[in-house]
Amino acid sequence: MSIHSFYQTAFSFFKAYPSASKLLVLSTFSGGGVLVYSDLNTVAAPTDRKKKVVVLGSGWSGYSFLSYLNNPNYEVQVVSPRNFFLFTPLLPSVTNGTVEARSIVEPIRGLMRKKGFEYTEAECVKIDASNKKIHCRSKDSSRLKGTSEFDMDYDILIIAVGAKPNTFNTPGVEEHAHFLKEAEDALKIRQSVIDSFERASLPDLTEEERKKILHFVVVGGGPTGVEFSAELYDFLVEDVSKIYPKVQEFTKITLLEAGDHILNMFDKRITAFAEEKFQRDGIDLKTKSMVVGVTADEITTKERGTGNVVSEPYGMVVWSTGIGSRPVIRDFMQQIGQGQRRVLATDEWLRVEGCDGVYALGDTATINQRKVMEDIGAIFSKADKEETGTLNKKEFKGVVKDICQRYPQVELYLKKNKMRNIANLLKSANGEDTEVSIEKFKQALAEVDTQMKNLPATAQVASQQGKYLAKCFNKMEKCEKNPEGPLRFRGEGRHRFQPFRYRHFGSFAPLGGEQTAAELPGDWVSIGHSSQWLWYSVYASKLVSWRTRMLVVSDWARRFIFGRDSSSI
Amino acid sequence: MSIHSFYQTAFSFFKAYPSASKLLVLSTFSGGGVLVYSDLNTVAAPTDRKKKVVVLGSGWSGYSFLSYLNNPNYEVQVVSPRNFFLFTPLLPSVTNGTVEARSIVEPIRGLMRKKGFEYTEAECVKIDASNKKIHCRSKDSSRLKGTSEFDMDYDILIIAVGAKPNTFNTPGVEEHAHFLKEAEDALKIRQSVIDSFERASLPDLTEEERKKILHFVVVGGGPTGVEFSAELYDFLVEDVSKIYPKVQEFTKITLLEAGDHILNMFDKRITAFAEEKFQRDGIDLKTKSMVVGVTADEITTKERGTGNVVSEPYGMVVWSTGIGSRPVIRDFMQQIGQGQRRVLATDEWLRVEGCDGVYALGDTATINQRKVMEDIGAIFSKADKEETGTLNKKEFKGVVKDICQRYPQVELYLKKNKMRNIANLLKSANGEDTEVSIEKFKQALAEVDTQMKNLPATAQVASQQGKYLAKCFNKMEKCEKNPEGPLRFRGEGRHRFQPFRYRHFGSFAPLGGEQTAAELPGDWVSIGHSSQWLWYSVYASKLVSWRTRMLVVSDWARRFIFGRDSSSI
Repeated sequence: MSIHSFYQTAFSFFKAYPSASKLLVLSTFSGGGVLVYSDLNTVAAPTDRKKKVVVLGSGWSGYSFLSYLNNPNYEVQVVSPRNFFLFTPLLPSVTNGTVEARSIVEPIRGLMRKKGFEYTEAECVKIDASNKKIHCRSKDSSRLKGTSEFDMDYDILIIAVGAKPNTFNTPGVEEHAHFLKEAEDALKIRQSVIDSFERASLPDLTEEERKKILHFVVVGGGPTGVEFSAELYDFLVEDVSKIYPKVQEFTKITLLEAGDHILNMFDKRITAFAEEKFQRDGIDLKTKSMVVGVTADEITTKERGTGNVVSEPYGMVVWSTGIGSRPVIRDFMQQIGQGQRRVLATDEWLRVEGCDGVYALGDTATINQRKVMEDIGAIFSKADKEETGTLNKKEFKGVVKDICQRYPQVELYLKKNKMRNIANLLKSANGEDTEVSIEKFKQALAEVDTQMKNLPATAQVASQQGKYLAKCFNKMEKCEKNPEGPLRFRGEGRHRFQPFRYRHFGSFAPLGGEQTAAELPGDWVSIGHSSQWLWYSVYASKLVSWRTRMLVVSDWARRFIFGRDSSSI
Repeated sequence: MSIHSFYQTAFSFFKAYPSASKLLVLSTFSGGGVLVYSDLNTVAAPTDRKKKVVVLGSGWSGYSFLSYLNNPNYEVQVVSPRNFFLFTPLLPSVTNGTVEARSIVEPIRGLMRKKGFEYTEAECVKIDASNKKIHCRSKDSSRLKGTSEFDMDYDILIIAVGAKPNTFNTPGVEEHAHFLKEAEDALKIRQSVIDSFERASLPDLTEEERKKILHFVVVGGGPTGVEFSAELYDFLVEDVSKIYPKVQEFTKITLLEAGDHILNMFDKRITAFAEEKFQRDGIDLKTKSMVVGVTADEITTKERGTGNVVSEPYGMVVWSTGIGSRPVIRDFMQQIGQGQRRVLATDEWLRVEGCDGVYALGDTATINQRKVMEDIGAIFSKADKEETGTLNKKEFKGVVKDICQRYPQVELYLKKNKMRNIANLLKSANGEDTEVSIEKFKQALAEVDTQMKNLPATAQVASQQGKYLAKCFNKMEKCEKNPEGPLRFRGEGRHRFQPFRYRHFGSFAPLGGEQTAAELPGDWVSIGHSSQWLWYSVYASKLVSWRTRMLVVSDWARRFIFGRDSSSI
């Protein structure tokens, strides 16, 4: 044992047992430390106790965190009701059999084995942050009485449980609509679509009955709703015409969107392109149309402009309007004083606000970004090293990098206003004057916070957060000694890590018929469906194994050669 | 219109409308028939009414019948609750993910399109033979009130609904056991096996609890039970050891068989080979063990020899002991006076006994083969053309072929006793005497009926019956004029068709680890698993499309490269 590593061991030991510090002093002063050496050896076991990291969830953020995590100092335990990772962008393709559900999942046990992590198939039903404990329930409690609920301790908790579909409390939705979030949902939809066609082919039905059964309603004009409509349309055109020729004429797809346009988070050109294509295809696109109720037979909408309420018979409804917090998260928010918020809030380092050692990723939480204006006084005084009441050029240069790192909205603002750097911004407020007063400083940054907006609830954001947090954990020991983050403007010293920054790689809106409208950094393009996925899977390369890629490609080949399968399994 | 075809049309017209016969006499006597000709033309529409053949079921026999049927004179309507054909021999492979369920199904809509047949996804719940009507119910009646039940007329009914698993009324089996007959069953078993391993991996369980959860019990030592055990064993050895290494030691497979041996319909060498292999593998094989009850936690067996009753905790039971009649068939049997029988009976031409225009194929029915001894008087007098009271060589030669065709047991008996032909048989009874009396004739054939046995309830029998019946229907018109069957010994003339003869192509017992014990015509061999299937699929070539063959082979390739998928979808 070298002296260096001896001190390291001792150091971490005394950190864990502060009451033994005197012994350390003794041993270092005694020089060789032979006497103490054996003592240290016998009590060395507790030193090795690794911190227990419990990860809840195996979706985009959780699986991404686990894939990139690579720090032997943690004991990792995963708890998720789903023992696989699901490549959600292809979920709409599962609904009509273009791709098989099994082809877009990665069994989590494989990753566990590779990384030496533990996995438990259960759902966390309660987080007890004050006791650092979670309460879990295994998936099916009907069979094994008494053994299906258990507690688990943690040192660090990573919440990556995602969200649930949001029905906005619309009556009848839970009972009558399909959702499209899980693999099971997609399989159910697939079976339900085939069943609809089989049912509409029964003898003794009136034309109205056939029309009702084959009226497919999609609620929500976001990417999922749009893609599902497009996939359904492809299925009607490419397959139904062949296998159910007698009822094809009765089919109808309606897409309902409460807003003014579908795909409203995209570039306007994409929206226009998509709306035009749907119109051309004969998909009945109704914008400004809010669903107010669903019964077993009818769906009722209210026109936002006119206030008209219309009920229409339908055969099948797919609901894809947005997401809401899961009950376990709502309960947790109550505990930590976030009960008033809509979504769980974290800081820029993904730490849940109001409790210790808990992180939240992906759709579960939003980042509560700090406003520049809240900290403007602290920023100014930190910058004003010479305490003159004004900032000169040199003082300003000393903090500009930290400001940009800590408050990313500054950079967005500069970019939007086509300014080269923050000095331009000050110049615009201060003219040619090189000394800046606090008032001028405030004035210059006043508009900056308008650039803040929440990150979208997408797979891209979730996977980047998982990767970011894993990389932080990987360099935890190093960064605790040498923090690499920006200055703490309110406190002392520096933050351990850079805050999370989202990098947008582009958005896709698959529109059916092998067409995808893509918004890539730079400008928008319209590309092929398959190439989109391959491109996507390459950039999410750590999460999507070669196995999945090959399975998906072979599914495409199967479909290309044999067509889609209409068996109602 | 040639005179020949004119008469044909007229003939079939008058067959359908006997009251118009007088008109026929009139028209033929009038010579040219110009006056009547136009009359015939105006009423010709009903002449073209095709006979409506309704086929119930899309399994081996039904699908085989439909695949080979090729007679434009029939209007064909298929009714089945399952819109696909399932290649059942690979069903056990679906239970552990070696093959995907979708790869072994053929959507029925494809065949319908090719053949111009109609399909309705519904279940026949009542056969009304006296009114030539069936009553059907569509699969899910909860959604479409009032439209889900309907009647359908038929001229000819083909019953190919298969059978249901037989629980022998053992208490608890319906509630707690898995069956293995349908695609859904296999998928449920697959999910259940994975769930068991996930559950056994939960924390806080005792060793007993883990052992209980991972105790898999298979009831029934027939080919399905044996193959499932073998597939499960493969999964444990090849996959569980990697993905659930911590619980592997707790797994146990028990195979229960009430008889003395497993695979008792096979050659003894195969049985011995299989039993030895299972013993070597550590599968707990218990013969002479009858299940008397299943509860949620325990399975209770009674030893046939000692009478000992033992209860054992289990995690999962798969029940595969035999088949029984479906309720719709039991009800039908009551109607037609077959209420006392165990299984629906048909004659050798697959016509249901006791009603007209109804055929039954596959597991639904058994052939009630006519005994030689019942007809011996009729046979003798038919043969004794010169009415001498004895048969001479020439007389005998005149009927020998018909006897062999009508009573196949004769040929089996000759084969078994290594006789060249029926003359040898008579010689053995009559010595060198060339004239045979009725007593000697009886004596010679006395033992022949012992060779009769029911055909096994296998896919092979079912598919051959379907093919046989389709070929009969294809040549119906021709054979009604020129019957090709044997002499009617009891009645006059000849039978239209040859009776159904089963040709045994061999039996397979897949034993896991790519090993299959095969009993082929000639002798038994042990061959590879995959080659067995390919061989089988080639001989069932009309039923198994190239699509299915390629999908299965690509599933094998996937498994070979990536291993089985442990996701619990």
